Amino acid sequence: MNRLFHVPLSPFCRKVRLVMGEKRLEVELVEERYWEQDPDFLRRNPAAKVPVLKMDGKMMAESSAICEYLEEQYPDPALMPRDADGRYEVRRLVAWFDDKFHHEVTAKLLYERVNRKLMGTGYPDSSNVKAGAKAIKYHLDYMHWLLDHRRWLAGDVMSLADFAAAAHLSALDYISDVDWNRSAVVKDWYATIKSRPAFRAILADQVPGFPPPAHYADLDF
Amino acid sequence: MNRLFHVPLSPFCRKVRLVMGEKRLEVELVEERYWEQDPDFLRRNPAAKVPVLKMDGKMMAESSAICEYLEEQYPDPALMPRDADGRYEVRRLVAWFDDKFHHEVTAKLLYERVNRKLMGTGYPDSSNVKAGAKAIKYHLDYMHWLLDHRRWLAGDVMSLADFAAAAHLSALDYISDVDWNRSAVVKDWYATIKSRPAFRAILADQVPGFPPPAHYADLDF
Repeated sequence: MNRLFHVPLSPFCRKVRLVMGEKRLEVELVEERYWEQDPDFLRRNPAAKVPVLKMDGKMMAESSAICEYLEEQYPDPALMPRDADGRYEVRRLVAWFDDKFHHEVTAKLLYERVNRKLMGTGYPDSSNVKAGAKAIKYHLDYMHWLLDHRRWLAGDVMSLADFAAAAHLSALDYISDVDWNRSAVVKDWYATIKSRPAFRAILADQVPGFPPPAHYADLDF
Repeated sequence: MNRLFHVPLSPFCRKVRLVMGEKRLEVELVEERYWEQDPDFLRRNPAAKVPVLKMDGKMMAESSAICEYLEEQYPDPALMPRDADGRYEVRRLVAWFDDKFHHEVTAKLLYERVNRKLMGTGYPDSSNVKAGAKAIKYHLDYMHWLLDHRRWLAGDVMSLADFAAAAHLSALDYISDVDWNRSAVVKDWYATIKSRPAFRAILADQVPGFPPPAHYADLDF
């Protein structure tokens, strides 16, 4: 049985869960409080972070390397275009969300509001929260610009880029930090991806001490 | 003509330069002081960072997406194994160096000592420099462990992982922040990769105000 060591609101774990869901790969989820540095976990993964996927007899870390592996080993349904230009654009956008969006938005909102409490590292830094709330507007506008002339974020087909973006946004939506009124095309895109079967487990997540808002799991939000 | 917007000591730019050099792709280098936020540059690249590669009529950003594109479009010589397991390991290690090593070492040594002065953002933060100097030892030990039972970092063939690692280490070596006496196998690995023709331009780099030490360009260091 495949096993994923994860935390529920981690966008990197959510991306792997969504991709496995799309490819109909069953996986047992094991919650891993990686910040407690359990020696067994560190042996499994010297980078000391989640996700870690146990699959095909191997322990795998780094969400993007895992997703590319899943795409190569389980190519149906495809989540990458076949041409090099299209694949470049998918990878550029995955990096955009997992690096730039993560640094400017997710780390400043989710990690301040939720992870600090879970990890016991103090109160949110309000200047970070303010910067994150400002930056997400710019990112939603960028997504609007992309989706205004593309069906999916990286082009005409649904791809890893959509799941990378949806992983971050869904985690932020859990704490009501996404203004869905800012762009109708972004909201439509999220409504479409949110209604996929792969999303169901994500929408059922519950973090003790942080009940999700009613709209979080509502497909008609 | 291909054109790379870069800064000389950026490990992400160096990785692209090394990969293009290995594949014998000519490229004109244009130094881009991206932190000055020139509007022309921002138009070329909304992520506002380097490298940006102008190639095949496109503007490309995100070093890992660029390297995967180069590998797909110019597969000779191959810098990725053909099997999914091997490719996973290359991507895991590229992410290790570009994410973890970058965050724990490069940002804490190179960016404190050099980028702050170039960008005019004050003096190095000594606690960061101290943390970086401590972390690089652990990373060199991890490389030692990998290279002790592998010919190259990700396995038996030279790959993008070696160039990602060499890009970071070469930039740190420019400011004498790598203790080559820590591991003979790591030093041998670097000596081999340093002697490749693709490395020549990297070894000729000069940053005004920061003359490199004599051993930097010496193949017998």
